[in-house]
Amino acid sequence: MQNWFIQHFGLDAVYVAFRVCPTELKNAVQGMRALGIQGMNVTVPHKEAVTAWTDEYSSEVTLLGAANTLKNVDGKISAFVTDPYGFIESLSENSARFNQADVLLFGAGGAARSVCYALSRLSVNRIILHDIDDQKTESLLRLCRTNLGLTKTVALKSIADDMNDIIAATPIVINATAIGMHPQENQSVIENVRTINKGHFFYDLIYNPAKTRFLRMAEKAGAVVQSGLDMLIFQGLQSMRIWTGEELKLNHASMQELRTLLTHFLGNHE
Amino acid sequence: MQNWFIQHFGLDAVYVAFRVCPTELKNAVQGMRALGIQGMNVTVPHKEAVTAWTDEYSSEVTLLGAANTLKNVDGKISAFVTDPYGFIESLSENSARFNQADVLLFGAGGAARSVCYALSRLSVNRIILHDIDDQKTESLLRLCRTNLGLTKTVALKSIADDMNDIIAATPIVINATAIGMHPQENQSVIENVRTINKGHFFYDLIYNPAKTRFLRMAEKAGAVVQSGLDMLIFQGLQSMRIWTGEELKLNHASMQELRTLLTHFLGNHE
Repeated sequence: MQNWFIQHFGLDAVYVAFRVCPTELKNAVQGMRALGIQGMNVTVPHKEAVTAWTDEYSSEVTLLGAANTLKNVDGKISAFVTDPYGFIESLSENSARFNQADVLLFGAGGAARSVCYALSRLSVNRIILHDIDDQKTESLLRLCRTNLGLTKTVALKSIADDMNDIIAATPIVINATAIGMHPQENQSVIENVRTINKGHFFYDLIYNPAKTRFLRMAEKAGAVVQSGLDMLIFQGLQSMRIWTGEELKLNHASMQELRTLLTHFLGNHE
Repeated sequence: MQNWFIQHFGLDAVYVAFRVCPTELKNAVQGMRALGIQGMNVTVPHKEAVTAWTDEYSSEVTLLGAANTLKNVDGKISAFVTDPYGFIESLSENSARFNQADVLLFGAGGAARSVCYALSRLSVNRIILHDIDDQKTESLLRLCRTNLGLTKTVALKSIADDMNDIIAATPIVINATAIGMHPQENQSVIENVRTINKGHFFYDLIYNPAKTRFLRMAEKAGAVVQSGLDMLIFQGLQSMRIWTGEELKLNHASMQELRTLLTHFLGNHE
């Protein structure tokens, strides 16, 4: 995808994959500096640990404690996180739905933290959190209430019988867990919900499969649904903007071309 | 050139330029390890210093104290020097001229050291060395006599009036200095030599310009001449063989294509 951007925008660069051991992370960042590599994306499992070795942080990185983008300016390495931007930009005309809305969010890991940051910028009313890991849930609850101004955030202890009532009262439902991701395509964070209707907006951060069981279920009930594909694209594009310092834009046709390419690629590399 | 090789041999790789400060050399090698970069070339001014940070050395690197090729196998970095191979392979059918021949060599720097290693493998009779830097000359003289089995090597104190006699008695003359290199194209290590004839073989390691004043002078007097272009190609190809572990070969047409490409490239990037 990043090499597609490079070609599309006519940049003089090449994007390659480096597999880095956790014990070599410091050397990898120092190597970036020594070799003059201008930019890097950082992914699992290094997003949190990498912040120990960079020279500067964006406010989002400081808040979220994780980075996915490094930029090297004359040997000074700055850390950014573009996932929140990717989420917001991916919403397009659906972003208006979030204003003062209640949101049910599944997951409390790194992706969910980025989503909460995005939700705080989208002026939602209240987030209802759920994760099977109580510690992660507690930590994200604290982040929302203390640092993101989302004081009405609450945690759901379990996915119980009242899910029908909760969803009936919550117009936006987001999956930020890995449940339903290839190859566990027949799984979903929620099942047998009877209260989904065409007023709902269901968002799944997963992009492989293109439509998870979670989204298929919601779509069947009339909800508007969105996969993680556009977020994937826009978080990557945002990194590219940070590296180049340019306001890179994709028109509708280019966006469609890239979606087709990525869908085809993901389908062939399962 | 290396990207031309990558495409020509259908390799899954990309070759990029890293500008490394001397103080960052250690971090650059550790970065190579951490990032899993499979191979690197090393050039001026790092060829000697880099050997302090690699895990293993070829016998040539140990002898010459310099490396131009690093290979990473599971985090273990080995150092190689491909310049001697490049010199030998570049000679092609002219290599027979070197057997038991006397050689006049201008220069005692890194390039000259690699040439001396190559000359030891070509079973020359005697090397006559000259460099304006007495310390470098002394060091190379010692290397030849002590480590390369070239016991008859001698040093020429100055380029004096007896150059006509020396060249009359020496069938092979090599320039391994930078004298005559672009943009000083009107310079030559020797001038006004009247004893050059068609029995002579003149080799200039410089490849820009394609034919130095040194070579033009010799060619005019009937000598067979060769520039450094093929050595450039073969030292690079040898690195590629080390990285891939494959016996990569160039046929005559490919060789000619690459020469044309490089000549054109060098002409346009002066």
